[in-house]
Amino acid sequence: MTVTTDLVVRPIGFVRSVYHRKYEAPRQPGVDERQDVARIELIDTIDAEQCVRDLMSFSHIWIISWFDRVTTWKPMVLPPRSEKKRGVFATRSPHRPNPIGLSVARLVDIHGRTIQIDNTDLLDGTPVLDVKPYVPYADMVTGASNGWLADIEEKVVFHVNTMAIRHRHFVTDELIAHIERTLSLDPNPHPYRRVSERLDGRRELAVRQYRFVFEVNDTQVNVIDAYLADGSLTA
Amino acid sequence: MTVTTDLVVRPIGFVRSVYHRKYEAPRQPGVDERQDVARIELIDTIDAEQCVRDLMSFSHIWIISWFDRVTTWKPMVLPPRSEKKRGVFATRSPHRPNPIGLSVARLVDIHGRTIQIDNTDLLDGTPVLDVKPYVPYADMVTGASNGWLADIEEKVVFHVNTMAIRHRHFVTDELIAHIERTLSLDPNPHPYRRVSERLDGRRELAVRQYRFVFEVNDTQVNVIDAYLADGSLTA
Repeated sequence: MTVTTDLVVRPIGFVRSVYHRKYEAPRQPGVDERQDVARIELIDTIDAEQCVRDLMSFSHIWIISWFDRVTTWKPMVLPPRSEKKRGVFATRSPHRPNPIGLSVARLVDIHGRTIQIDNTDLLDGTPVLDVKPYVPYADMVTGASNGWLADIEEKVVFHVNTMAIRHRHFVTDELIAHIERTLSLDPNPHPYRRVSERLDGRRELAVRQYRFVFEVNDTQVNVIDAYLADGSLTA
Repeated sequence: MTVTTDLVVRPIGFVRSVYHRKYEAPRQPGVDERQDVARIELIDTIDAEQCVRDLMSFSHIWIISWFDRVTTWKPMVLPPRSEKKRGVFATRSPHRPNPIGLSVARLVDIHGRTIQIDNTDLLDGTPVLDVKPYVPYADMVTGASNGWLADIEEKVVFHVNTMAIRHRHFVTDELIAHIERTLSLDPNPHPYRRVSERLDGRRELAVRQYRFVFEVNDTQVNVIDAYLADGSLTA
């Protein structure tokens, strides 16, 4: 059966959050220690007062969103911490045939057309397609399996030492936080996370124009050098 | 903020199920005692073999679907068993700004481009936009509230007696099952469920061209007459 029907959706609102770029977002909501409140701003043409009536009686909501910074997909993806590619439908990767995201968030408050949430991994500006209540009797599946994720649940947490680069003038706290977040989950080479293996056997993490050179010993990650990709500082 | 961006989605597949019409589908998945296996048929242009790789390692999946038989929405809806209208985002009603459905289903089997599921409330032919694994550590929210639904959770189950109409030639087992399903949940007048109050004080349930007249005594629903709306049989 081949069908090419186009179905049209329109944003009902947009996410406002502290995460502005893909690399800043936590790999899983809740992993980030920052608990900044994010929010959904409903658009003007939605009758917010009526549409959200009774919503505050729920503690959590589903946010169905549009991965607007994703333009491509492939049938198989390499998820974080996985050692092999998995079928896209067996992952929560944003790179999928219809770039539709599904996230649960705690409902903090609603006023006017603003729905305050926390614990989200959604990027600032993300279009929101729908908001639904989280209904435990429908959405809680006791005994559901974690699938292939169960095999990697027990992976170690890596300890990241960034002391050696903190004196560099361009190394901000934001960059340090990002390096630690990324490498503590998994310092292995990965194209999406922009970790690569160098010719000298060391590894390198790319963040915008910045490059961070590191070595891994057991569960210890030592970031030993930092430079700018335009060559203004050499490793 | 007013934005009218059109975003385009395309079905990755279609549901095949025993439910062909809206009125046949259970109000909640699992409420129906029939456990017929339903399935998702992926379309030809999806590389099924790769896309579903590793999916069988999960016990449950999310199905993001398109309510293709719904064309309208309003900011407030009257959900089943609720005595007042609720904001659409506080309900799981299919009548919503973007008619996107979210259902969890048990994964039974996968072969070729067929994903067998059970326990679904999805109608036959429903377009599927996405399939994602149900991941307990992300999707199970312990302690989440049932919101306004908690207030109606304790409502009684009505016992439906259809003996008086079973001799009518047009009253099939399918119709009986539908009457019992609908009225045992809530025999109160409701426009979507097509239950109305008659001039004689009795109530009436409409199913296609059929009309069923009933009375309610406490938790007992007695269906006392059945007729055809075209007048070929009178009540």
